[in-house]
Amino acid sequence: MKIGILTIGNELMNGRTADTNASFIAREINLQSWQVEAIMSVGDDFASIKNRLDYLMSLTDAVICSGGLGPTADDITTAAIAQAFGLPLYTDENVLTYIKDIFTKFNLRWVENNAKQAMFPQGAEVIPNSRGTAPGFSLSVEGKLIFVIPGVPAEAKLMITHGVIPALRKQFPQNEQHAAKQTIKTFGLSEAAVDDRLKDIDFKSLGVNIGFYPVFPENHIVLISRSKTQDQAQINLQKAQDKVSARVQDYIFSYGEKTLEEVIAALLTEKKLTIAVAESCTGGLITNRLTDVSGSSDYLERGLVTYSNAAKISMLGVPADIIEKQGAVSEETARLMAEGVRKLAGTDLGISSTGIAGPTGGSKEKPVGTVYIALADSKQTICRHYAYRWDRKRNKDMFSEAALFLLKNYLQGKINDTR
Amino acid sequence: MKIGILTIGNELMNGRTADTNASFIAREINLQSWQVEAIMSVGDDFASIKNRLDYLMSLTDAVICSGGLGPTADDITTAAIAQAFGLPLYTDENVLTYIKDIFTKFNLRWVENNAKQAMFPQGAEVIPNSRGTAPGFSLSVEGKLIFVIPGVPAEAKLMITHGVIPALRKQFPQNEQHAAKQTIKTFGLSEAAVDDRLKDIDFKSLGVNIGFYPVFPENHIVLISRSKTQDQAQINLQKAQDKVSARVQDYIFSYGEKTLEEVIAALLTEKKLTIAVAESCTGGLITNRLTDVSGSSDYLERGLVTYSNAAKISMLGVPADIIEKQGAVSEETARLMAEGVRKLAGTDLGISSTGIAGPTGGSKEKPVGTVYIALADSKQTICRHYAYRWDRKRNKDMFSEAALFLLKNYLQGKINDTR
Repeated sequence: MKIGILTIGNELMNGRTADTNASFIAREINLQSWQVEAIMSVGDDFASIKNRLDYLMSLTDAVICSGGLGPTADDITTAAIAQAFGLPLYTDENVLTYIKDIFTKFNLRWVENNAKQAMFPQGAEVIPNSRGTAPGFSLSVEGKLIFVIPGVPAEAKLMITHGVIPALRKQFPQNEQHAAKQTIKTFGLSEAAVDDRLKDIDFKSLGVNIGFYPVFPENHIVLISRSKTQDQAQINLQKAQDKVSARVQDYIFSYGEKTLEEVIAALLTEKKLTIAVAESCTGGLITNRLTDVSGSSDYLERGLVTYSNAAKISMLGVPADIIEKQGAVSEETARLMAEGVRKLAGTDLGISSTGIAGPTGGSKEKPVGTVYIALADSKQTICRHYAYRWDRKRNKDMFSEAALFLLKNYLQGKINDTR
Repeated sequence: MKIGILTIGNELMNGRTADTNASFIAREINLQSWQVEAIMSVGDDFASIKNRLDYLMSLTDAVICSGGLGPTADDITTAAIAQAFGLPLYTDENVLTYIKDIFTKFNLRWVENNAKQAMFPQGAEVIPNSRGTAPGFSLSVEGKLIFVIPGVPAEAKLMITHGVIPALRKQFPQNEQHAAKQTIKTFGLSEAAVDDRLKDIDFKSLGVNIGFYPVFPENHIVLISRSKTQDQAQINLQKAQDKVSARVQDYIFSYGEKTLEEVIAALLTEKKLTIAVAESCTGGLITNRLTDVSGSSDYLERGLVTYSNAAKISMLGVPADIIEKQGAVSEETARLMAEGVRKLAGTDLGISSTGIAGPTGGSKEKPVGTVYIALADSKQTICRHYAYRWDRKRNKDMFSEAALFLLKNYLQGKINDTR
């Protein structure tokens, strides 16, 4: 089956927004063993949308459109598609009630142009949107299927997975096959290095497709196994997963969709351990990520962003002369910060970061991207030094990921040094 | 002048690579006041490349192709374009020498398929590539211009700026127009509400285009003014901006590209004020955002994530009975947190957050999404209560944005209450 992707919005045509939906949709289509024949972007313009749609329909069996379903005047996708095929628009009262309920529930002031999001071309089947006010729809015209979903990436992703893909499978049952899917999340290897380690594995003979998805600073591997029976798909998936695991074992933190902070949450909860954080260069990002998990107050006691030396000295008890002699960015300071916050908070564990996120503050011995991560328990403090070379924000992402990955390894009993 | 963009490569069609070249090229074209009419991606396939190129040429004056100029077997762009227009290929001896020199200089082993990169369709003009071995080319066919550049983003960027744009300017001098652009960033109004407030402004008569770009939890407005002279474009832009400002004044935090935290950085620096943060529900996000700005250590002294009540009591001096009677999520606690962290850190300002990010922890009186933000200086403490209704992550985003927006207003002297 050939699929066309049409992303719609002036923000794509003027380059203000990079099109992440197209690549996401393309990945999902490829994982289904269908072929993406063409990807196109078009502005919010009636004639252009019709023209591009006609062209894509001439090339493919189904076109997935994303974007232009908002409430504002420049969101014209639904109207443009209705006009393109000479279909009248109707208001779906159920959807209208659903949208109005959201406004009531969230105490938002109802503005009449929001009613636009409850309008659909005649014959459309509504695709629910559990994340936002704009549902999508599918339409069967001229023997081809058209899907329309919002441009907001989080909403688009959910609706592709739960709305579009199942509908395509149903419409093109000759492609019906049993599938099993596994995501394997890794940190610490580049995409090229992951690819290199896996490249000679024969996934094809297992009926398994493999995809690589860099989600900075992580690299995710997705395996999709297809077979005549669900059991066989599952068996082949497991075989493929075992092969992948054997090659990149040390870098895997999650089999499935769990985030690194969710994996840590489960480990801390299982082991009934509490933790406190002392951050310098990460500026609150480690604590922020830990608190992204609901229920984190059960194990996270506090987090201190000791940005100034005075804060490191007065709150964490790092001696001034250590900072003076070794530097605020040093192994010794990192260790004392982790130990200090653990004592102060009375927790089982203390974790710390000190480094140089950049772009300023680097030196020859300690260039931008240098970071020390320390982790203290009642018996020992371990410390790691890493050197990255990204911009400020990505260095902070890397530093926080390295800290959380170290914590995960510790909680899984994978750390053996004792100094 | 209308431009089409065609990005070429199987990695785009299977979603393995997100297409960043298209948005970069689109931005550059828009800055020249030219119009991007269509953006397309296609796999490495002779017939498909010809088909897409024909279609794009029917819509535009010039097509910029990127990708497929490498030395490997699947890099077929040059050959496909030559075949599409029935042009023979020739080897440019100067280019071949240039490529061979690079191999010698970097001690690389010469492999004969690299000579492919010195081949061009008859009539092509070479566009030099100062960063890599694959030069690009331009071709004039059927009254249209075709540009072909590599897919490697760093090379593509240089060649667009130094090769493609100057060549287009030379070929289409009649399209010379001057443009001026302004971004206006807002927080606190929904996209629909912004649209509603601005919808009856006549931007067209000013030659100004307006675009709305939601960047959760912010809404950005972009104005592009075009005119025969740069002066007039600037005057019209200012008029449009004044009209927008008059309607959404209270919600604007940035004229230009500065982030909210960068605006705050400039204000704190200008006023020589220091700040400390005490966070509960935002879990470190406020501090993390403040530290996203390089040089933030000049004004940010420390940030405390007092997640437990014990931390609020012992570090910030919030009396236990206040937490017991009013609750950890209360105006009184927020005020005492801001005052407490200000005193502890010895800073000019203290800012705090306490609330319920969810999904658990809500009650009838204090539902999920409730937050109190307080800001203390030496004379007063102000406090605000907000109610949002998003998921945990977006609530945290909203809370932190509300805190930073309040801080911005305070620093701009826009807060008048004193209790």
